[in-house]
Amino acid sequence: MAKITTLHTQRFAVPLDEVLTDARHGDHFHFELITVTIGFDDGSEGTGYTYTGGKGGWSILAMIEHDLKPFLLGREGADVEALYEAMQWHVHYVARGGIASFAISAVDIALWDARCKRAGKPLWQMAGGASNRCNCYFGGIDLNFPLPKLLDSIRGYLDKGANGVKIKIGQPTLAEDVERIAAVRDLIGPDITFMVDANYSMSVDQAIEAANAFKPFNLLWFEEPTIPDDYKGFGRIARETGMPLAMGENLHTIHEFEYAFDQAALSFVQPDASNCGGVTGWLQVAELSRQHDVPVCSHGMQELHISLVSAQPNAGWVELHSFPIDRYTTRPVVLEDSLAVAPDAPGIGVTFDWDKLDAAADKAA
Amino acid sequence: MAKITTLHTQRFAVPLDEVLTDARHGDHFHFELITVTIGFDDGSEGTGYTYTGGKGGWSILAMIEHDLKPFLLGREGADVEALYEAMQWHVHYVARGGIASFAISAVDIALWDARCKRAGKPLWQMAGGASNRCNCYFGGIDLNFPLPKLLDSIRGYLDKGANGVKIKIGQPTLAEDVERIAAVRDLIGPDITFMVDANYSMSVDQAIEAANAFKPFNLLWFEEPTIPDDYKGFGRIARETGMPLAMGENLHTIHEFEYAFDQAALSFVQPDASNCGGVTGWLQVAELSRQHDVPVCSHGMQELHISLVSAQPNAGWVELHSFPIDRYTTRPVVLEDSLAVAPDAPGIGVTFDWDKLDAAADKAA
Ligand SMILES: [Mg+2]
Ligand SMILES: [Mg+2]
Repeated sequence: MAKITTLHTQRFAVPLDEVLTDARHGDHFHFELITVTIGFDDGSEGTGYTYTGGKGGWSILAMIEHDLKPFLLGREGADVEALYEAMQWHVHYVARGGIASFAISAVDIALWDARCKRAGKPLWQMAGGASNRCNCYFGGIDLNFPLPKLLDSIRGYLDKGANGVKIKIGQPTLAEDVERIAAVRDLIGPDITFMVDANYSMSVDQAIEAANAFKPFNLLWFEEPTIPDDYKGFGRIARETGMPLAMGENLHTIHEFEYAFDQAALSFVQPDASNCGGVTGWLQVAELSRQHDVPVCSHGMQELHISLVSAQPNAGWVELHSFPIDRYTTRPVVLEDSLAVAPDAPGIGVTFDWDKLDAAADKAA
Repeated sequence: MAKITTLHTQRFAVPLDEVLTDARHGDHFHFELITVTIGFDDGSEGTGYTYTGGKGGWSILAMIEHDLKPFLLGREGADVEALYEAMQWHVHYVARGGIASFAISAVDIALWDARCKRAGKPLWQMAGGASNRCNCYFGGIDLNFPLPKLLDSIRGYLDKGANGVKIKIGQPTLAEDVERIAAVRDLIGPDITFMVDANYSMSVDQAIEAANAFKPFNLLWFEEPTIPDDYKGFGRIARETGMPLAMGENLHTIHEFEYAFDQAALSFVQPDASNCGGVTGWLQVAELSRQHDVPVCSHGMQELHISLVSAQPNAGWVELHSFPIDRYTTRPVVLEDSLAVAPDAPGIGVTFDWDKLDAAADKAA
């Protein structure tokens, strides 16, 4: 038993080193980090967080502050799964998914951090325990990089020990996408794992044409070829081309994942604990992924997902995303022999360097 | 051409006369009203709004203030459908649905108010023009009313000229629900239209048992028997019982409505312009409803929906909801010969009495 006594939430606008662009969300100048620290009457404490590409952070903060905090204060906080369900119902009318999923995720991760600390165990042990390391790849937000710069950034990933890389596609013409894909495959050779991500910039028919054009380049997956809502469209692309498909970063409820598993013919699933319900929501998706025999991967927030993905018996690939949240923690991501290694400290293993964050970020922007 | 020059948004916590209870959202002590007033460089102005059952209002306000307002100021505001699409993409990563749909709805309704005023026409003419009046029913939030009080409230609806009434179901036992349904049918006689609403408190199997038990009472529809995410579950209830089903208040994107039309076997659809994308989103659903030959109804916000439903060639029934938003406008809802009559003034026909709202509501609560 551990009653929730305090909840403190903050929003940070964290600048990016350079402007990052993808096919659908345009230019990113900063990302938003929303943190939640929860205190309990047994003296334990946990910190969770979520992030956005620069929009919605104030809205997430408002829901945590005005809707979740009054609901949580005074409640027993040890049964995380029960609180997760209760939070979902509490805001159900203005949910499901969207902002509510981001807000609940941040709170749930804080509850898990406290749970792991109370147990004296790291998250990878508490969340499945299959392993403490997993495959990883660098995911660039590089759609606007001219080809030489794109190749330079890929070289940078290889220098860091990557054995997997992903680039954005969605250039004005398919020929340009193919040219960039061919150049990257040429650079990395046949043994480095390679994925592409269209950020749903294509129609189903365009995606089918693209998937066929990409076949010579041995892609591990083609990510979000079309809008995430079109589960059946994904299914048609997969069936008509044989191209392995991946998605998940835009699915925010367990029901959306159920429909995706049923209808989208995914080869990989990429839930993001920052927006699919925190650790609790992510583990629900991981359980579903085993029922459907699909490896579970991740999107963004690598400093946390390494623990979650490593812990699963059907672990896929962790994305090392271009938003450097781990730069503002006491343990930036660790790679050993091209594998990502989960932290062993009790808790979720993500401890913010608040001074560094305060110095770098803007709370008003 | 009309450039957006100002946007002013407010949140009001409006107290209810008594505590209202349903099967899933518990007790309602107040509702939240979030208003948006947009000014244009041609001197035109429009006011839109959304509402909630008491949670999420601050989050909606924050999204309008921090994400939509900076995006809208300086833009051309006459092409409402283009702006609607642009807003959806602007916040896509923290959408789709949920809070973003509520926020976009409020803005879209303001844009439509200005559009109608510029054209000098009422909304019912601008949104289809089929008629200026439609069928309506009183929808109680009355799950916790003892039977005598329930029957009193039904008598009150009949006194106001109702020829349709809806009650909440979801009592501890099915027998209690059946008893209340039988008593209401006995009171209203065979000619008054009668619906029930479970607020998704049942499993699919429970709903099938309930639908069979409700058959003697000639219900027009059984609303939200199970969770709105379970489109196929709705389909199974409809097929196995023949009971007409309705939903829509919890569908927040056009994609969710597409899946519902495809899989849920709905007999009636109930989009709510306050949370499915405003007038633009509601009209998209109305268009879909004609493709699927389903009458289009509404949920909540009757002072606006009367214009939208009346205007459709496949108009169903407008709900006269228990949240009395129209009490704070200059034209409370008008019934003539049991039909709801749309306002004829240019604009959406909903003009807030700001003094009355300020006096009744709490902006801090
Ligand atoms: Mg992606
Ligand atoms: Mg209802």
